[in-house]
Amino acid sequence: MTNMRLIFLGTSSATPTAERGLSSIAIARGGELILFDAGEGMQRNFIKAGLGMNRKMKVFVTHMHADHCVGILGLLQTMSLQGRQADLDIYGEPRLAEFLHENMRIINFGLTFKVNVHAIRSEGLVAKERDYQILCCRANHSVLAYSYCLEEFDRPGIFDIKRAKEMGIPEGQLYSSLQTGKDITYNGKIIRSSDVVGPPRPGRKIGISGDTRPTDSLIAFFRNCDLLVFESTYGHDKQAKAIETGHSTAYEAALLARQASVKKLLLTHFSARYEETSELVKEAQAVHNNVEAAEDLSVVEVPYPQ
Amino acid sequence: MTNMRLIFLGTSSATPTAERGLSSIAIARGGELILFDAGEGMQRNFIKAGLGMNRKMKVFVTHMHADHCVGILGLLQTMSLQGRQADLDIYGEPRLAEFLHENMRIINFGLTFKVNVHAIRSEGLVAKERDYQILCCRANHSVLAYSYCLEEFDRPGIFDIKRAKEMGIPEGQLYSSLQTGKDITYNGKIIRSSDVVGPPRPGRKIGISGDTRPTDSLIAFFRNCDLLVFESTYGHDKQAKAIETGHSTAYEAALLARQASVKKLLLTHFSARYEETSELVKEAQAVHNNVEAAEDLSVVEVPYPQ
Repeated sequence: MTNMRLIFLGTSSATPTAERGLSSIAIARGGELILFDAGEGMQRNFIKAGLGMNRKMKVFVTHMHADHCVGILGLLQTMSLQGRQADLDIYGEPRLAEFLHENMRIINFGLTFKVNVHAIRSEGLVAKERDYQILCCRANHSVLAYSYCLEEFDRPGIFDIKRAKEMGIPEGQLYSSLQTGKDITYNGKIIRSSDVVGPPRPGRKIGISGDTRPTDSLIAFFRNCDLLVFESTYGHDKQAKAIETGHSTAYEAALLARQASVKKLLLTHFSARYEETSELVKEAQAVHNNVEAAEDLSVVEVPYPQ
Repeated sequence: MTNMRLIFLGTSSATPTAERGLSSIAIARGGELILFDAGEGMQRNFIKAGLGMNRKMKVFVTHMHADHCVGILGLLQTMSLQGRQADLDIYGEPRLAEFLHENMRIINFGLTFKVNVHAIRSEGLVAKERDYQILCCRANHSVLAYSYCLEEFDRPGIFDIKRAKEMGIPEGQLYSSLQTGKDITYNGKIIRSSDVVGPPRPGRKIGISGDTRPTDSLIAFFRNCDLLVFESTYGHDKQAKAIETGHSTAYEAALLARQASVKKLLLTHFSARYEETSELVKEAQAVHNNVEAAEDLSVVEVPYPQ
């Protein structure tokens, strides 16, 4: 069991408002923090949320508009002031590397840790850990942009202790072998892992759209997400504006989520014109039965699929 | 009469807190806005204060630490989204020019207006308008840093209408000539401007320290300021830390203000360790009789000297 929760650090599009900061989403997974975008000023909500400047951390940038990437600079400075020592891994299109290298050259951050910048040059696997991976897919925005998925690998099936005891297997190393899928020999008898361990249990899948129009590739990419965070800059009466600027409406986000069989949809990246978002949620709920609107600092637990 | 007020857009040092954003000070003078520093996220308070994205505006940067300059990037983006048309003039040490040019090259701001970057290469005059000028002086910080003064030119003296009428001078063009210091001939008689116009009235002088240790040059530079905004990162028990990091204590700020015969001192740029600043103000008041602590969005009217 690894706890996973998603924390919205900024939910406004383009321009911050009194209530909403610029784009940033944090996934706290076990001891690690995985950030998607870092709009200007996101460190304020980062600090408010008490996420911790010194933990294992990766940052994925969807695209190089200022409201999605400029906040990394302030984060680097504050991390250094707090004496961060762990490496920081940052991923994005090649211009992100240029942005970071130029600014680290010009501004004296007094970095106390190593920044590893990873330039993404193609779709697919971006980062891989022991029990999850991050994938990217081209989005459809006014500049080169990526959507991301966090996919956990399957967890081992449930170990049937009762049955193992009935079979007379002693606790300890043999249990452990069976649990990790290995067949064993005990008292001259072959015991298969599958005799005492249930089928592998699927991990969780979370999608992050960044700024984009809905596309068929994204329907495929986000298929079966337990949780999908999709931009909904506009209400559907502003669809023409959404098309013109490379964004989505709440209705379009929900339609894509339904087509991709997404379990839960979170709307974010609202135009500053919307003081509140209930109309947008209503438009989305017309086509998807599990929709919520993100607010700054709202926290969403991500349970394992049933 | 030109109205002038100072608005604090960020009063925290280095790291933002729940209550304080990163360094930025606005002077609204007549129809113009003059900014000193633009720390990350300052546009949020800029928007809250309703200062207007499209007015005549200059930005002066004290030094190239991220918490003093990164906010310009977000400001450029929001101004563009709002369709600003007027040029924007930005002043700072040569690396500021590099910072802006590189970021404008890498990030697609979709600028709707012209950005004029002015590299400061020596102390003295930085910008001059019809009725005021901006001067700079080297500060003493961990990197190249400047302090600034806004100095209004003298205003014409008070025109004594009663006396002018007694002398039989008709209203109109002759009044205007006398008011602007010209002597006139009326009915064959020479009338001197000084007969009906009082002595020139001094304009206002405002000082902005940026990040610095107190120095003798700054005492001279800030002499007779009507208003001085001086950094006071620490209480005096942290003087060693202030010396080490190139900052000032509240007590040191007040001592400099007294030595420079400053009328009113505003403390700002507080370390995030201070949840409230009354102790710092108390330390400063021990040596200066007119001290206040700045808060985010506090507004200070700047009256003409008596």
